[in-house]
Amino acid sequence: MIDKTVAYINEHADANVERLKELLRIPGISTDPTHKADIRTSAEWVLRVFSGCGIDAELVETAGHPCVIADTGPVDGGGPTVLVYGHYDVQPTGDESLWDSPAFEPTVRDGKIFARGAADDKGQALTHLLAAEAWMKTAGKTPIRVKFLIEGEEEIGSPNLGAIVEKFKDRLSCHYVALSDTPKLNDRTPAITYGTKGMVYKEIVVTGPSQNLHSGSFGGVITNPGNALARILDSLRDSDNRVTIPGFYDNVHAITDEETRRMDDVGFDERAFLQSMGAPALTGEAGFSTIERRWCRPTLDVNGLFGGYVGEGASTVIPAKVMAKVSMRIVPDQDAATISAAFDKAVRAGTPEGVNVEILNHNMAPAYVCPLDSAGIAAAERALEAGYGARPAFIREGGSLPILAIFKEQLGADSLMLGFCMPDCNAHGPNEYFGIDDFHNGTKSAAHLLAELAR
Amino acid sequence: MIDKTVAYINEHADANVERLKELLRIPGISTDPTHKADIRTSAEWVLRVFSGCGIDAELVETAGHPCVIADTGPVDGGGPTVLVYGHYDVQPTGDESLWDSPAFEPTVRDGKIFARGAADDKGQALTHLLAAEAWMKTAGKTPIRVKFLIEGEEEIGSPNLGAIVEKFKDRLSCHYVALSDTPKLNDRTPAITYGTKGMVYKEIVVTGPSQNLHSGSFGGVITNPGNALARILDSLRDSDNRVTIPGFYDNVHAITDEETRRMDDVGFDERAFLQSMGAPALTGEAGFSTIERRWCRPTLDVNGLFGGYVGEGASTVIPAKVMAKVSMRIVPDQDAATISAAFDKAVRAGTPEGVNVEILNHNMAPAYVCPLDSAGIAAAERALEAGYGARPAFIREGGSLPILAIFKEQLGADSLMLGFCMPDCNAHGPNEYFGIDDFHNGTKSAAHLLAELAR
Repeated sequence: MIDKTVAYINEHADANVERLKELLRIPGISTDPTHKADIRTSAEWVLRVFSGCGIDAELVETAGHPCVIADTGPVDGGGPTVLVYGHYDVQPTGDESLWDSPAFEPTVRDGKIFARGAADDKGQALTHLLAAEAWMKTAGKTPIRVKFLIEGEEEIGSPNLGAIVEKFKDRLSCHYVALSDTPKLNDRTPAITYGTKGMVYKEIVVTGPSQNLHSGSFGGVITNPGNALARILDSLRDSDNRVTIPGFYDNVHAITDEETRRMDDVGFDERAFLQSMGAPALTGEAGFSTIERRWCRPTLDVNGLFGGYVGEGASTVIPAKVMAKVSMRIVPDQDAATISAAFDKAVRAGTPEGVNVEILNHNMAPAYVCPLDSAGIAAAERALEAGYGARPAFIREGGSLPILAIFKEQLGADSLMLGFCMPDCNAHGPNEYFGIDDFHNGTKSAAHLLAELAR
Repeated sequence: MIDKTVAYINEHADANVERLKELLRIPGISTDPTHKADIRTSAEWVLRVFSGCGIDAELVETAGHPCVIADTGPVDGGGPTVLVYGHYDVQPTGDESLWDSPAFEPTVRDGKIFARGAADDKGQALTHLLAAEAWMKTAGKTPIRVKFLIEGEEEIGSPNLGAIVEKFKDRLSCHYVALSDTPKLNDRTPAITYGTKGMVYKEIVVTGPSQNLHSGSFGGVITNPGNALARILDSLRDSDNRVTIPGFYDNVHAITDEETRRMDDVGFDERAFLQSMGAPALTGEAGFSTIERRWCRPTLDVNGLFGGYVGEGASTVIPAKVMAKVSMRIVPDQDAATISAAFDKAVRAGTPEGVNVEILNHNMAPAYVCPLDSAGIAAAERALEAGYGARPAFIREGGSLPILAIFKEQLGADSLMLGFCMPDCNAHGPNEYFGIDDFHNGTKSAAHLLAELAR
């Protein structure tokens, strides 16, 4: 049966690329309220994929952007049920002048499709939909029961997904969750990601005078919010690149010898990694390797800075208000709420006299690690090998997928994370891309996954 | 003669306000290249004031924005020649939502005219033009020879004024410069400002990866330019609010007992000053009074911060590039070039491994102090008392007027700085204003100044 399904995917390769382009043209930026309608348009597009191949599907409203829930229904012969998760919302484009082709005009160059969301996650999520479609078109059914939950709020931290999963607990019940929102190891090797970092995302707003003041007439007699913000931010990290928030590392454990061995197995190429980033040097927390910093160590990063005069030339103001967006990536067993509170306390303690500080909370998500000894993980490994012709690497990821903990907690299901896109796919930057071969190999891997889980 | 002139000013009070409004409607923002034409329009407006009362005037091109040079010509009886300086360029509006009425739609409320440039410097400069006009209309001449140099680049540091003064050295030769680009002491007391701070304005650009990166996938392994910028900025000041740049205070001298006495005379109201700023507290360099910090101590202020994601909500990027605008106000005898070089060295020394730093130079200006024992200062004191009916205070100012050193060096002339606007006039912030009474009293003071200098 799988041969026919794979043949179908091969025959429809060009058509599938055109369909991905269609989806990529919809600018569904969830961080930006002005794109609300575009996310609904994306949901409706996904709905049509399901209805086009006879899979029951429904657009489900949430308190925010809608999601799509689909279900092939029970299949003969039992086998586990898999819930495919994905998201059709995307990150903002950032500075559009840095894109070589417009972010929402998907363009193929050098065997890659460039567009915002090409990899994260429209392209990768679509592989699973097209795989199920291929099964439906060739076998009239999928090898196992497949459910789908495709959402529109992942890039804003999935604020309503927990409520949806709780509400539709029975309808979404499954043995495994499958998703592709993580990268391959490198151009040759697909990957199964078995751990992700959690996140605590904050915004620090520092205010001083009631309005911008002339820095000559008023300099030196009040605390400049810009100077104060620099002091606060710098107080959070030391010169060894360790986070100085009291208690921050209390529940951070050293990795096991087995994990160290697995990391060595990966054959991580530091030089290529550095080159892919274009940064002057690899740096980081003293006492850890690059790969360990990346996968297993918590971080604290400034994500945005704004305030005062930012135009051309010079304007001599003391800014009334400045802000920094700051996020921490946390690891097991750091508790997000505990870290959040410790951050707030440290920021307040580090705020100099003469300014007010307000701390806004954005996303918060726990870290997740998947056990490696399950039948599901073994099936995923075989599926990737069949789809790619190469054994997958087992890796961890610095990014956060807040939904993994939700699935574990609400559905009792572990997540199989199959990575098809390149690690330097520019997921949140300009010129995001997805390799055309990866798109097709991913689709085939997703088709194999259903067959392998059925074994 | 002065009585007729003052009567003329009184009779034309309303008309003068309308003329000021006309000038304020021209959005001549010199920091913003898109407003180039508006500065020329402002110059042409000023030219018409002179031609309307029979004063020879010319629009003079510079390498940047044009200036206007005018001259009443020699008068019988000799007396000193005064060169009136002013500027018709203005600061940017900043966040327009913070203005109670649009920045370029001058609006009168509570006896004040609100608009960008109302005080700095269109309104204050215009007093001298209207005073000369009143003399011309009532006496057919001014009591002494008056020259004018009104420019369009003060808010960007007068980059071409030095060349203009040098080129037209003979034409601009004078015994004193008179200008109004500084404030009163308070609502009751006009002021003569006898010292200003200099300025060194920098922009620090920190770059890391070649583009914004996902802070999960790439966090912890490279230096985040946002984290690095905070470190650099914070390294420049200590917890006593002293600047830590090596050598920064080398040529900063303690003030004399006489200056301390003059400062005490001013009766500076700290509580009212703090209230006018709306800041939580008065702070500053340890060991100095508020007024001494403001007038006599050098400062280092962040003027602007930008980089990474600054929109609504959360976006998890490591910014490829962040920048800070930073300015230092310097005092006699700090040398601007020396301080500039020391700043660059300190920034480079404070830059962590793993990022590149570039330092752009914007304005640079020396500090200035006017001797208090001249006939010109005495004439200015009498003129303000006559115009306001109140003895002026002698004050120093934290702001910078780079042109003062140019006049001293090129023309050998000291500057008489007559302050008419309120110290909380929001010169560089939203809701800039100029009191209508101050506008009229200033015009009368400027008229008296010519008579007093003639004595």
